[in-house]
Formats: sequence, structure tokens, C-alpha cells
Amino acid sequence: MCGIVGIVAKSYVNQTIFDALTVLQHRGQDAAGMVTCEGNRFFLRKDNGLVNEVFRTRHMKRLEGNMGIGHVRYPTAGSSSSAEAQPFYVNSPYGIALAHNGNLTNTEQLADEIFRSDLRHINTTSDSEVLLNIFAHELQALGKLRPSAEDIFKAVKRVHERCQGGYAVVAIITGYGIVAFRDPCGIRPLVYGKRETSVGVEYMVASESVALDTSGFVLERDIEPGEAIFIDTHGQVFTQQCAHDTKLAPCLFEYVYLARPDSIIDGISVHQARMEMGVKLAEKVKRVMPEHDIDVIIPIPDTSRTAALEMANSLGVKFREGFIKNRYIGRTFIMPGQTQRKKSVRQKLNPIQAEFKDKVVMLVDDSIVRGTTSKQIVQMAREAGARKVYFASAAPEVRYPNVYGIDMPAASELVAHGRTAEEIGKYIGCDWMLYQDLDDLKASVSTYNPAITEFDTCVFDGLYVTGTVSPSYLRRLEERRNDGAKAAGDDAQVDDNESADLLSRIE
Amino acid sequence: MCGIVGIVAKSYVNQTIFDALTVLQHRGQDAAGMVTCEGNRFFLRKDNGLVNEVFRTRHMKRLEGNMGIGHVRYPTAGSSSSAEAQPFYVNSPYGIALAHNGNLTNTEQLADEIFRSDLRHINTTSDSEVLLNIFAHELQALGKLRPSAEDIFKAVKRVHERCQGGYAVVAIITGYGIVAFRDPCGIRPLVYGKRETSVGVEYMVASESVALDTSGFVLERDIEPGEAIFIDTHGQVFTQQCAHDTKLAPCLFEYVYLARPDSIIDGISVHQARMEMGVKLAEKVKRVMPEHDIDVIIPIPDTSRTAALEMANSLGVKFREGFIKNRYIGRTFIMPGQTQRKKSVRQKLNPIQAEFKDKVVMLVDDSIVRGTTSKQIVQMAREAGARKVYFASAAPEVRYPNVYGIDMPAASELVAHGRTAEEIGKYIGCDWMLYQDLDDLKASVSTYNPAITEFDTCVFDGLYVTGTVSPSYLRRLEERRNDGAKAAGDDAQVDDNESADLLSRIE
Amino acid sequence: MCGIVGIVAKSYVNQTIFDALTVLQHRGQDAAGMVTCEGNRFFLRKDNGLVNEVFRTRHMKRLEGNMGIGHVRYPTAGSSSSAEAQPFYVNSPYGIALAHNGNLTNTEQLADEIFRSDLRHINTTSDSEVLLNIFAHELQALGKLRPSAEDIFKAVKRVHERCQGGYAVVAIITGYGIVAFRDPCGIRPLVYGKRETSVGVEYMVASESVALDTSGFVLERDIEPGEAIFIDTHGQVFTQQCAHDTKLAPCLFEYVYLARPDSIIDGISVHQARMEMGVKLAEKVKRVMPEHDIDVIIPIPDTSRTAALEMANSLGVKFREGFIKNRYIGRTFIMPGQTQRKKSVRQKLNPIQAEFKDKVVMLVDDSIVRGTTSKQIVQMAREAGARKVYFASAAPEVRYPNVYGIDMPAASELVAHGRTAEEIGKYIGCDWMLYQDLDDLKASVSTYNPAITEFDTCVFDGLYVTGTVSPSYLRRLEERRNDGAKAAGDDAQVDDNESADLLSRIE
Amino acid sequence: MCGIVGIVAKSYVNQTIFDALTVLQHRGQDAAGMVTCEGNRFFLRKDNGLVNEVFRTRHMKRLEGNMGIGHVRYPTAGSSSSAEAQPFYVNSPYGIALAHNGNLTNTEQLADEIFRSDLRHINTTSDSEVLLNIFAHELQALGKLRPSAEDIFKAVKRVHERCQGGYAVVAIITGYGIVAFRDPCGIRPLVYGKRETSVGVEYMVASESVALDTSGFVLERDIEPGEAIFIDTHGQVFTQQCAHDTKLAPCLFEYVYLARPDSIIDGISVHQARMEMGVKLAEKVKRVMPEHDIDVIIPIPDTSRTAALEMANSLGVKFREGFIKNRYIGRTFIMPGQTQRKKSVRQKLNPIQAEFKDKVVMLVDDSIVRGTTSKQIVQMAREAGARKVYFASAAPEVRYPNVYGIDMPAASELVAHGRTAEEIGKYIGCDWMLYQDLDDLKASVSTYNPAITEFDTCVFDGLYVTGTVSPSYLRRLEERRNDGAKAAGDDAQVDDNESADLLSRIE
Repeated sequence: MCGIVGIVAKSYVNQTIFDALTVLQHRGQDAAGMVTCEGNRFFLRKDNGLVNEVFRTRHMKRLEGNMGIGHVRYPTAGSSSSAEAQPFYVNSPYGIALAHNGNLTNTEQLADEIFRSDLRHINTTSDSEVLLNIFAHELQALGKLRPSAEDIFKAVKRVHERCQGGYAVVAIITGYGIVAFRDPCGIRPLVYGKRETSVGVEYMVASESVALDTSGFVLERDIEPGEAIFIDTHGQVFTQQCAHDTKLAPCLFEYVYLARPDSIIDGISVHQARMEMGVKLAEKVKRVMPEHDIDVIIPIPDTSRTAALEMANSLGVKFREGFIKNRYIGRTFIMPGQTQRKKSVRQKLNPIQAEFKDKVVMLVDDSIVRGTTSKQIVQMAREAGARKVYFASAAPEVRYPNVYGIDMPAASELVAHGRTAEEIGKYIGCDWMLYQDLDDLKASVSTYNPAITEFDTCVFDGLYVTGTVSPSYLRRLEERRNDGAKAAGDDAQVDDNESADLLSRIE
Repeated sequence: MCGIVGIVAKSYVNQTIFDALTVLQHRGQDAAGMVTCEGNRFFLRKDNGLVNEVFRTRHMKRLEGNMGIGHVRYPTAGSSSSAEAQPFYVNSPYGIALAHNGNLTNTEQLADEIFRSDLRHINTTSDSEVLLNIFAHELQALGKLRPSAEDIFKAVKRVHERCQGGYAVVAIITGYGIVAFRDPCGIRPLVYGKRETSVGVEYMVASESVALDTSGFVLERDIEPGEAIFIDTHGQVFTQQCAHDTKLAPCLFEYVYLARPDSIIDGISVHQARMEMGVKLAEKVKRVMPEHDIDVIIPIPDTSRTAALEMANSLGVKFREGFIKNRYIGRTFIMPGQTQRKKSVRQKLNPIQAEFKDKVVMLVDDSIVRGTTSKQIVQMAREAGARKVYFASAAPEVRYPNVYGIDMPAASELVAHGRTAEEIGKYIGCDWMLYQDLDDLKASVSTYNPAITEFDTCVFDGLYVTGTVSPSYLRRLEERRNDGAKAAGDDAQVDDNESADLLSRIE
Repeated sequence: MCGIVGIVAKSYVNQTIFDALTVLQHRGQDAAGMVTCEGNRFFLRKDNGLVNEVFRTRHMKRLEGNMGIGHVRYPTAGSSSSAEAQPFYVNSPYGIALAHNGNLTNTEQLADEIFRSDLRHINTTSDSEVLLNIFAHELQALGKLRPSAEDIFKAVKRVHERCQGGYAVVAIITGYGIVAFRDPCGIRPLVYGKRETSVGVEYMVASESVALDTSGFVLERDIEPGEAIFIDTHGQVFTQQCAHDTKLAPCLFEYVYLARPDSIIDGISVHQARMEMGVKLAEKVKRVMPEHDIDVIIPIPDTSRTAALEMANSLGVKFREGFIKNRYIGRTFIMPGQTQRKKSVRQKLNPIQAEFKDKVVMLVDDSIVRGTTSKQIVQMAREAGARKVYFASAAPEVRYPNVYGIDMPAASELVAHGRTAEEIGKYIGCDWMLYQDLDDLKASVSTYNPAITEFDTCVFDGLYVTGTVSPSYLRRLEERRNDGAKAAGDDAQVDDNESADLLSRIE
Repeated sequence: MCGIVGIVAKSYVNQTIFDALTVLQHRGQDAAGMVTCEGNRFFLRKDNGLVNEVFRTRHMKRLEGNMGIGHVRYPTAGSSSSAEAQPFYVNSPYGIALAHNGNLTNTEQLADEIFRSDLRHINTTSDSEVLLNIFAHELQALGKLRPSAEDIFKAVKRVHERCQGGYAVVAIITGYGIVAFRDPCGIRPLVYGKRETSVGVEYMVASESVALDTSGFVLERDIEPGEAIFIDTHGQVFTQQCAHDTKLAPCLFEYVYLARPDSIIDGISVHQARMEMGVKLAEKVKRVMPEHDIDVIIPIPDTSRTAALEMANSLGVKFREGFIKNRYIGRTFIMPGQTQRKKSVRQKLNPIQAEFKDKVVMLVDDSIVRGTTSKQIVQMAREAGARKVYFASAAPEVRYPNVYGIDMPAASELVAHGRTAEEIGKYIGCDWMLYQDLDDLKASVSTYNPAITEFDTCVFDGLYVTGTVSPSYLRRLEERRNDGAKAAGDDAQVDDNESADLLSRIE
């Protein structure tokens, strides 16, 4: 998962891009990058690290120009070098820099094609570099000295035809403007908004609407599946549908866990969707265990708080903050003569004894991935004196790999892989394991925008909305993730409750 | 405000001190430091920055030894240079390093005395350096080649006789052990605990019990007002009351805002005290406005969440998360040719429209200091569509300077200075301003430990429990803070809801 | 001026490239860079700074592969940003990285052409980026999936046809090998050599033969003017003449000042050429002032030492080290409240009084550029007690701009611009000003390789051997250098005796 | 060996101390430090690294005040941590910081005494910390609130009585001034000078007179053995002889190798002394081999150049620069999968073939320590084609440890330890080994100041001028150096021709 932003403004954009990336930081803490354009010249800064580590005064001073794009990157197995930080740049044609959020499922084939047709060398394993070169190649093929909006949309069309997967893209063309587009299924989110200033209207495209909010931009609308937007240097806006057979099937996991609660994605408030997930969980409790003995509902902070609260309200049960999350995350130094200590969830969460003592507690998390953290949390609740520990997940069982840009462990490492809810409950040691039903989850979201009838739900049901994911691709993915997991340890991937801001940084 | 820790263990303590400081990071994000002792040698690392910025692998490798102390510092007006990071060190007698949390109110007089009596030079404006030299002088005056626990306690007694103010201190004496003590009123918190290991028992003293929890230490008890604890290198523990006329009058602000909710201070769970504050607020609502029209109660995250939730429960009103806090805080770069932008609370908090739209909202904060942030928040709630905006503060009006280690603006900058609650409400623009009564606040805390009959409540009532604060001291303080405020801007001081982890760092 | 190196070896080349760049550091202390190639992947590190500042262990670890190229850059007016450090990279075709030493005189026209014909964007003002894109374009135009040595030579031919100026180039093509070539006049030096190892023969191309020596490579020969060499990944070597109408006209200034004395350029030992310059100076003394009263000959260290010694030997006059050069160069910090101090030559050179006291001294420098340093040195000699101060320059009057890669001040700032030797002597304050005759200088060099009948002598006589330098180019150059000089101060350019290792670095 | 400086001026001294340390950098490249004093406050910056690495703009800005001291440190076996960089500081009495050049031979006993008498803890193995505490203790013992010059001299007297060894010391007392003194034998050098400015006279004390020269100070005189100088904050100068039984016995090795040639030490120009060493070597040649067949004399740069030139002049033989020294020194990175390469002298020196080919060459070095470098150089000369290789050392055989501040290998590692000159010649592989006679060396120096009748010549004859060096001390030294050598490798110590600026830095 990543976050992207692009701005065409009337004054220097470096600070506003910086601010937007900071607000999008939850989408990726591994690396950050920015390209600005002043006249015919690009300025680029990217490196591993948080936004406020990567951009220092000395960099900001050089990031000149009234338009630019930015990116924050989530660490993915096997691609965490600073060389793979985005944006990427090619100088032919025109000079183009590009950043994206998502994942292509035919990267290798495209890299090969692009080399054969255009001798373009791909120097990393990043699909962003491939995407950029496909776009660049298609634009170059038009052979225009000055490309028009129409030319740019033609190139985007070809990108949609050739690329498979989920992607939200922002690119900047030296001296021309910014182009952004979203895959034909609208899997990854992309919005744009505008800000009126005394010197004219400014535009921002971004992964989430919160990036608009905090800089005073007003949300115009979501970019449609397959649609592209081109904003030229003068602030003129062009949009065009660039794909056939589009459908809106947004990633359901954005609502569950990835997005900020104050974002509005495809017309739906993430916050409200999460509240509804709590309501639906409560209904399931009433359905399957009308005589429940729950004393208190306790969220695993932070994401699940919204759902847990409404679940409590719906059930008429007390809601309490029973775990305190450590905001500051340390690291474990490996010293000569010391043995490596097992990382404990205690460094991330601390229980408040009084809330557990002699109670039947229902813990609520947004989802469960590996199950190892959940197991430790249940154990912690017991040690804190809970009489019984129930565990609810606002999302259904996560059983399949995601191929559209969310880095998940190999399927074989998912606790729900090959296990029933009951078996999972046994594994994590709780007295009752409650999973949201997939239809309930979908309903929780679509209730706020009934126009959406389909979601990318692949991690829950293994169905891939793009219809182009081959079994061989999935096999290679599984192998790579197994290897990656072994090499990189747990830190580099999404895990139960391992929300992005928990990840410690590597020096 | 600062955080301190000291450990005597059976193996290297650097990692455990690092972990403890990380957990105490909320008590100070301005600077961090650690001294360890191996044989007769001290190793010191301190610098401005967060714990995981100050300590890198190369430093940790050199921080050898089975005992050590650590410190995190809150920025205070006029003392934010890295030279004033703690611990401080003197080589005579024995080699002593010391760190503390609190503030002395007779620093200047002591610095003068110590120079005259002992020719000891104080190179900074830090009262910690003064405290260290007083302690060192008194220990030296005993003239022992090897000080006994008894000698150390004698020196602590003299420290209590000479020093005025609130302080929790930890010191390390080369080759001997660790000594910690708390002022005779017990204003600043200090606890100790132990951890059984296969090679023996290990001890930790710390500002808050959470530091014990996360490293597997078990809370023994609070250090008594005026009491000292000495743990020698072999892990033998000595304690002694070292002051006359002690009384337990802990800082009430620790419970309101400073401490972590999962800490237990002087026998009281901070979390429970905060819940009770919410209950008491609800009672006041029922008392003064039984026919209230509140639709929803919304906390200003994070501190006030606990009180707000219980307030809602007690009132039978909906509780909702209406503000999302930005976890990642950026900074504003001042570029040539750009004008400095006003820092907006929007970079810290973002409202969720749906929770405000057409509602009568009761916002709850832990306390109000300058009022500028509260004003912006009220404004934000209105823009989000609130029909009426009420504002509750879990603490009474903050009207007086704190002299025991909490850095506050000058009294003249406090919104409650010379204003009634009603006038404050007018100033921040809310439709109803609700302050907790001081007696209610006291009761919220003491209900969990009735043995405590007195608190340091100086910021609310201007009464200084040590009885030694001169009007001339307060005058100088006011002047300095006025100057400091002008020089440093708002960032360097505690402000409304400007909880510690919101503060942006200066490069 | 810059230094370049390229290696195809049987094991990792990072350390050997590092070593070679260190030895070539005198050719540029402003920036350094390296690209290595492992399989189909490039690894790049470049930044401002000295070689051992730019490459740290963490970078070296990532610079994998058995072939690579490297570069050190001399600061030139207006192009000292780290973005313009070399090598440059384009991904199309194949992935090519390139570094060069020299200067193109038709950069702007080429940049325009390359954009029009190929839409290739040039993002910097660096002619290296242009050169790379011309080469890349010509290679791409051949449309081969796998280029042969023959293809590569074809592309080089086109480069020679299109590019004007002096240049020695090294480039690396992902997965294929290294190509190096020299302009058709052989203005800038380029050699290659080989090293036998147990696992096969390894090859290095480099600006100077010293780079071969210190890593155990044996000089094969100079690359001919217009010739290209291609070494494939297996170590197979191909060479071909790629230009028509070539002639060998090496830069005379390399022998005077730029090259290391232990280098052999175009068959001529720089050391021996410099000795001969001293002999020729002595002959001129005998010719023009047979009854001279010189007591002692004193070199301005380091470059002129060789010539001065032989001048003394030929004249039968004492040779003495009268100036000690400061090896460690500081900087001047500009502090608030302090006025900027004038930089004095005293921080670079210190006289030994005894060698000047009451003597007639003949100071010898390799050349005189602005004259400001020479003036201070003469003054220093007088203050040290010299009875008379004579000044000899081993090179003739420097009167014209260099357009082949040596950054000189604007002509108007050259002390010899519009002045006779006598007038120059008056300006710098010496009692006798002795300049080498240009024919003597040529003879000093060509005597060791009579095959060379022509040199690039443009700085002395304004004649440009390439025959393609337009008056309008020279005019723009003069303007730019005037501006650059004003902006950057004296530090950024070659000055009298301002030998490269004297330049202080900017933080 | 180290370099020290102290200044009392009329404006900020940070830049001038920086400049002086840069000029003294040849005396130590391992660490640098500075303390300045403004009012009653010290500012300290010290770290490992070269002067221009340790002091950055951000540090210089804080180094306020019109007086200060500085230090550059040579790496010595076992004390290269940044914690042992100088100056050291104690806060009692007054606040004193101190830096020194030299070595105490009774450090351990003093550290013990100072702990017993004063409970002062010594936290490092640095004798500077001991020296500082002795001085501080003696000053404190006088019990003055404001010490007079007389008091300070009393304390220095006690230092001389208690400390054994060779030392030149500079200290700064908060608010009072700067004091400097030299051991009673005057082993280590120390001078002072003054500079007239428009606002008054400024004073500098420094290890060498070159530090005065380059900042425009004029040499007043050397500090006498046992003498102390005190310059108060107002610029008043006091001097006093503070020791009994003084004698001037300066370190002979300063003239041979350590000092800059343009320095004047105890009235003797180092440059002239070195020239005389060459004359004396020539006389020895004439004496022992009147029919010599030397074709050319070649110095090992840089130190031996002066002697070699005069040797050539005296013999009427050609002098030639046959070795080029690499000014930029790289490092060897140890990569995974690579074997550590043997460091070769080829990375430091490169021969010019033409000067060796078929010739009988006499190589001249200043001295020979381990002999390993000399051996490689002889080998290099042979490979360059020399018919015969002779080797002359301007200093006699180095056979004994230095205990006065020059870090030498253990005696057992000295090539001359237990070998005759002939055997040494055999070891290094030369055809004739010529050592200066000790009496000739002494005469070379004393001829320029006949008042000096004694030198510290311990490395040559094992005689220790202080008369206080016990056999047990020498034994411990030998053991430690043996260990140190094994741990640290060759880099950390003086070696043949390993002149200070050759040492590569450790990252």
C-alpha cells in the first residue's frame, strides 16, 4: 500500500506536498519521495524514511516549482531499498516522473515487452518503473513534439489495455502538467479537489480525501474507474474515461483497515462504514448468541475503536479502553554477547488491569492476519484477570493473498488459511471467536453508497475482480512471500493489528 | 516535565533503559540521555531528539554495564540546548551522574552557595546541575573513601534541607549503585519495582509504573515523599525516610493530563481517575443544566477520551469519535520568498463531518491552557455543521504558574487568567463552557486512595504546597516565561490539547 | 576538469574503482560517483564531496558487480549541485550510464536536436547528460535487441560527428560491457591497461596512467584520438577508430599543471616534461639575462617543484623549499556579528624566513591565472626579507578561455589578458617577470614524443584545435563566467597556484 | 603527539582557534576539540575526526567568547574513543578545562592519589584527565573564591612536583583566563605570541610557532621549561618559573619528524636543522665511503625532502623527486565475500620509473620505525629499475620506547631493536644502510642554538631525561603496546614514513 499526491498550484508546491504526504503517512512509512517541476527542470528527492526524515530544509529549498507529485511507500517484501523509492523518472519522452499505489499482476511480461519493443531497461523489481515505461513508451509512440491532453489520454488508454492489476497513478510531464488515473475496476482510491486562492484555482489529486482537507482543498469527486485527469501547468483541467468495460469494485480492505477514518472513498465515509461494521457484529452476536454474557467490549487500538464502540452501543454493553498503545516505538539492538530477545506485543500494548479483572471481555480487532499478535493479546487479557476472553474481527477470515497492492504474508502463514473460525479461536486461545460475515461487511460499506455493488474482496474469498490473475502468478507470489517472510522477519508485512504506525524503523 | 529511570540488573541495562525511556517518551520529547556504569567507568550518551533518534547502534554498543540511569526531557523555555540534556555528571566525589524530573524554586541561591562553599561552577541554567552539585557537595563533605548507604542517605537529607521545590531524582555513583529520592511533598511521582531472573533479582526505579510493566518488572510501591532508595551494585536495596515534615501532596495535573492512563501513581490508576472525572462532569451537567440538549459527546483526542466516554455513559448520551488526530506531524519550512504560514490546528485534528452535522455537541478536553487551540476546535466543529457547540474541561480553570516542573505559559497568557468560565466560553466561542470543580477533580482522584488528602493544585488555585515559593520568584518566573514565549513561539510550552506527542521537532 | 575510470574484472570492482578515483582525486574534488553492474542491474552512488566522503561502507556494500565506471568532478561555475554529479543514466536503450571529462561546445544545439528528434529531455545544464543522450539515441536508432561491438562503434561514430569539443568518455551498458572513447583531437587524456589475475585478465580505462599503477594494472597504451574501446562482460576487448580526420593535439595544460607528475600521457612522462620546462626556463634566463643575480630558486609548491629544481640545476643556482604548504585546509565560518574576513594566501602557504632574508629569490610557479595569489606571494617573500623577488612561470601567459573542460575565469579576469609580461610583473609586484615561451613549452613536452606535432594551446594563443568554436559561443561563455565568478567567488575556479587539493569544501 | 592552542582576544576566538588547529593538524588527526568561555559559561565541542569535520557551522555558532583553548589528538593505542578527546572539564573549582600534549609516566599512581585525597573520579585512561584533576585539586586546596595569578602559579608548582613526564599544557578557568605551562625539562614545545589589533593586544599560546604565523600573531618566545604563563580575561600577561631544577632538553624527534619545517622551536628553525641533518649525512658518506657511486638522491616525501636536498648539494649529486605521494588517502572496505587485501605502500607512494632506471639511488627518509614500509619502498625502487638501492636515515636507529607523548610500537617491533645498521639494511633489502650518528643529529640541531646542550633522545639511546621512568613502567608500556598493536593493527601508530597525514580515517 502506498499514498500518492499531485498538485498544480499558483506558487511553490513543496510545502503542500510535504503536508499531504504527512497526512497520508499511514499508507506507507517506509520511504517518501517528491518531484517538483520548475520550467523545464525536475527536482527530485526520495529516500527511505518517514516524510519528515526524508525532507529536510536543504532538500525543500531545492524542490522548486508550482507543480509536483509525491509518494509514501509501504515496505513490501523484497523491495525496500531506497533505489526503489518513488517517484521514478525517465527522460524520454519529455521527461516524465511517476508514482503509484497498487500492484500490477503482469509486471514481468510487461518488462520483457517494453525491452523488446523499445529497448527500455527496467533497473529495479518495482512495477512502478514498468508502469512508467509503458506510459512513456505509449506517449513516445505518438511522436508529438508537444503532447495535447488528448495525446496523454491516448497513452493512458494504452496503459489500461496493457497493464493488469489495481493501480492509482500520478505522473508529471516536464513543462506540461500532471496526469492521474485509476485502474478500470477502481480498486485503489483516487480523488481530486480544488482550492481557491487570490491568484487562481489550485488542484490536488490524492489517494485519500484527508490530504485535501488538511491543506484547505475541497473534495471535487473521486476519479472514476478507468478515468484519467490531466491538469496542465496553467491549471486547466481535462478528464476522460480511458478504459472500456470499467466497473467500480473498490478494495474492501481500505474501509476495514487501510484508510483514515476521516476519509471519504467513493462517496462513503470510512468512519461511518466502520461504525456500521460494529452494528453488524452486534447483530451477529444477537443472532448466534442471544444470551451472551459479555461484560465489556474492549477495542484493540486504534483502528477497531470505531466498530467496537458501535458494537457496544448496539448490544447495550459497556465500552472501555482496556489497552493503551505505545505511541513511541523503540527497537531492539542486537549487541555482541546478547541474545536476540523475542519481540513482545507488550512493547506495543499495555492492558489496564481494572478493565479486565473478573470480567467477560469481548476484544474487537479490525481483522486478523497471522494471528500471532491476537494470540498474545488474548493471553494478556487473561493475565490481566479476565474471566472469559471473546474475540471479534470486524472483517471476515483473511484467507487469500492480495494482488492489488496490499502486502500480505504468504497464504500458508495466514491463520485463517485452512482453518474454521472455531479452529482459529482455538489457535489464538479465546473462548469465543466471532468473525464478521462477508455479506455483512459488504453491506456495512455499500449502505452508504448503494451504487457500489461489487468490491475487491480477494483476501476473503480469493476472487480477483480484474479477472486476469493467473494461477501461476499466484504460485510465484506465494513462493516469493514465503521467502521474503523468512528473510525479512515479521516486520516487513502487514500483521494482525500491526497497523502501519507501529512499525519500527531500521536504521 | 521529564521522565527518569534507573536500573541495577544482572546483565547489560542499555536496552532496558532504552525501552523504559521509550515508554516514558510522553513525558518529554525534547532530549534524551543515558549513563551506564561498568566497573569504575561511566558511559554517557545524551542529545536533543526522541529516544530512538538519540540512541543508535553505535551508541548502544558503548553503553556498557549492569547499572545505569536514563532521562527524557520536556522542552522548557530557554533551556533547550543539547548541553542541558540530562544526566549531568561531576567527577568529584566518586563520579556521580544525576537526572531529575521537577523544578527547584531556589536554584539561583543554591548555585551561588555552592560556588562560595565549594567553588563548584555551574555551567548551565539547569536546576539539575545544581541539584547534582548540592548532592555531590554533601556527599563529599562526609569525606568517606567508600560511602555506605547510610552516608548516601545523609547526603540526601541535606539535599532535602537545602533544595526547595518538587523533584524526583535518580543518581548513579560510580562503582557503588543507584540512589533515587522524591521531594518531601511527593509532588513528582516515583516508583520502583523488581524483576526476578535466573541470575537474580533486578530493580528499576521510574517516573511511572508503565515503564516497569513493559519490561516485565513488577511494581513494588511508590517511593514515599522524602524517602530515598539506594540499590547497590549487588542488588541490595536500602530505603530510608530522609526528610522531616513530609506529606503526600502529589501533582493533580499528572492525573489530568501528564501521566499515561495505564500508570498507577500513589496507588491510584490514572485511567480510573480519568473515568471518574467524566462521571463528575456528568453530575455537574445534571446539576447545572438538568434539561440539557446534548446530542453527542466528542472527545478531543487522545487524553480526554476516557473522561468523555464515562461522561457520556453517565449522561446516557451518545459518545462519538468526531476528531481524527494526525499521528504524523510535519513541520513548516520557511523558504526564501515564502511568507510564514500560520500553524493551524487542522494539521493536528480533522473533524468527521457526519458526527457534527446538525447536532448539539459537547466537546471534552482534559484542560484548557491558552485557549487558542480550543477556539480553533470550536470553530472547526461549527464549520462541520454543529448546531450548538458546548465545551467541557475535565480540569478546573488553569490560572496560575506551575513551579514544580511543568512548563506553562506566563499567567498573563492563560485564558483563564482574570476570566470567569463564562468569559472563557465567550473567548473560545462556545455556547456553553463547562469546567470541572476543583473539589470534584480532587475527589475523582482521591476516591481511589482516600489516604491522600492533599494535592499540588497550584495551577488551579495558586497555592504552593511546599510553602517556600516567594512572590519575587513568581515575578521572575512570569517575566522569564513572557520573554521565553516571545522568543520561542508557542511550540515550546504546554498548550491546550498540545499533548506532548503533537510537538513538532526542530531540525 | 574531471577524472574517469571504467573496469571490467573477474570479481567485484567497487574497491578498485574507489582506489582509482582516489588516485584521480586531484582531477576533481567537488563530487564523485560510481555505477556498477551486476547482471541486468545498475547500482549508482554519487554525491558532492571527496571520494572517501561520498562512498561509505553502506554504499560500497550495494555497489555490486564485476564491471563499473567512476567519476570525480571539478567544480565548474554554475553546475556544482549534487544533481549534476556523474555518472548520468538513461534507461533507454538497454540502460546506459556515462561519465566524461571535457566539454562540448555545441551543448545547447545538441540538447535542442535531441529533444526534437527523440523527445529526450535534458534535466540539467550538464553536457555529460547531453553526450549520454546523443550516444543513447544513436545506439537506439540501430534498433538492435543485442548490440554488437560493431553497433556500439557505429554509435560512437555518430557521437563524434555530432559532438564538438574535447572529451574522454566512459560508458557502461547494462549486461554488455564498457565502452570508452576520446575526441578526434585527443585533447583530453585516456589510457587503458590490464591486470592478470588467477581467474583471468581484467581491464581498466582511466584518465591517467597513475590510476592503473596503484591498482597493479599495467599500461597498455593511450586510446587514440577518435578511437573507441569496448570491453564486454567476458573481458573481450574490441577497439576501432571511429572518427575521420583525427589528429593528436593533447591539452598542453595537462603537462603544465593538471596531471599527476607520475602519469604518462600520450607516451610522455609528465614529470620529465616538467623537468624540461625548468631547463627551458633556465635557458631563457641565460638568454635574456646572462648576468643574473639570482641567489636562490624557490618553488611555489607543489606542482612547480619539478620545474624549479631543474631550472636551478641548469643555472647552477641553489634550490630551496622556501614555502611550506598547509596540507589541511580550513574554512571561514560566517558568524552573526562577525565581518567576513578576506581569505589570505597565508592560510595556504607559510614562508621560511631564513630562505628569503637578504636574498635575490626567483619564485617559480607552473602558471599564472588571475594573478591575485601570485601578488600575495611576492608580497610575502618581500616581508620575509627578500632583497629582490623574481617570478617565473613555467607556462606562457594565460590569456584566453579554455573550452575543452578546464574551468577558467572569464578572460577579462585573467591577469595576462591585455597585459604584457612586464605589465604583469608590475601588477604582481615582482622585480622581474619571466614567462616561458610557448614554443619552449611545446618543445619541453614534444621532446619526449616527437610524433606529437600539435597541442591544444588555446589558453595561451586563443587557437582552438577543433576548429568549431564560434565567436558567439565564446561570448556566451565569457558572460556566464563573469556572472559565475561574481556569484561564486574565487573558490569555484582554477586560480594561480590554487592547485586542486587546496580548495576548501563547502558544508 | 598532540597539538594545543589557547587564545585570549578582544573578539570571538572560535575561528582563530579553528585556524590554529588546522595548522597544527599534522600533530594529530584523530580527534579535535575546543572550549570557549563567554562570561561564566563554557562551550565545548570535541569529537573524533579532522578539525574541519569536527567543527561545523552549527558548532561554531555556539562556541562563543573571547577566550578559549583547542586541541588536536594523535591516535594512541587504546585511547581512541571520542570520550577521550580533549579538552577535559571539571566543574570544581571554578570550572576548568584543560588540554595537553605529552605523556605522564606516573598516571596510575596519581589517579589513585587524587581519588584518595580528593575523591576525584577519573573516568578514562587519559593522563590529561589526571593532569586536570591534579591541577584542579591543587587550586581548590588554596580555597580562594577568586584565584590570583599567584595562586594559579602555586597550583602549577604543585603539578610539577607531582607529575612526571613530558607535557605542554593549556587550561582555561571560567571567567579568569588561560594558563599554560611546560614540563621542567621542556620536552614538549610551547610558544606564545601576540597580535596587535585596533581594540587591544591579543595573545596566543601554541605547540608550534606556525600556528601564530598563519593568524598574524608574532612569536614572543618559547615558554621556558617549568615556566607558566597566565593571561587573564583582560589580556594581562603573567609569567613565572614554577619548577626547581629545570633544564632545557627538548625532544629531538620534533626536529627530525614531528614539527612543521616552518616552525621555530626553542630558537631553532626546524627547516634549518633538517638541512643540517642532510649536510651531516653527506659528511658521513664522505667519511665512510669516499668513493661512493651514488647517481641520484631521492627523498621519501614529504618530511625527508629538506635533508635529502642538502645531502645531495653537499655531495654534489643529483637530487630528484622519484616518488609521488598520494595526497588523497582511501580506505579498504571489508565486504562480505571479499578477503581483506594487504595494505600496500603503493597506495601511498608511486615511483617515477625514469628516475630509478639503471641508477644507483640513495633513498633518504627521516627515520625508520618498524621497517616494513622501508622494505616495500626499497622493493619498489628495484622494480622501477634501480641498479643499486641505498637507504639513509636522517635519524639514528630507533630502538627504545618514547614515554613523553610520542606513540611508538613496542620496542620488540622496532626494526632497530637488537639489530645493527647492517642487519637492518639486510632486513629492508637495501645495498647500503646509512644511519645518522646521534652526535651528528644533536649537532645538526644545537648548532642553531648552542645554549641547548641536552635533548630528549630516549628513542635512540634509552636515556630518559626526567630521571623518573621506572623499569616497571617501561615493562607495562611494552606489554600494552604489544597488545594494542595486535588489536589495532598498524594504523594506529607511528611507522616508517607513515607521516601523520597518511593515516586513513575510520568511519
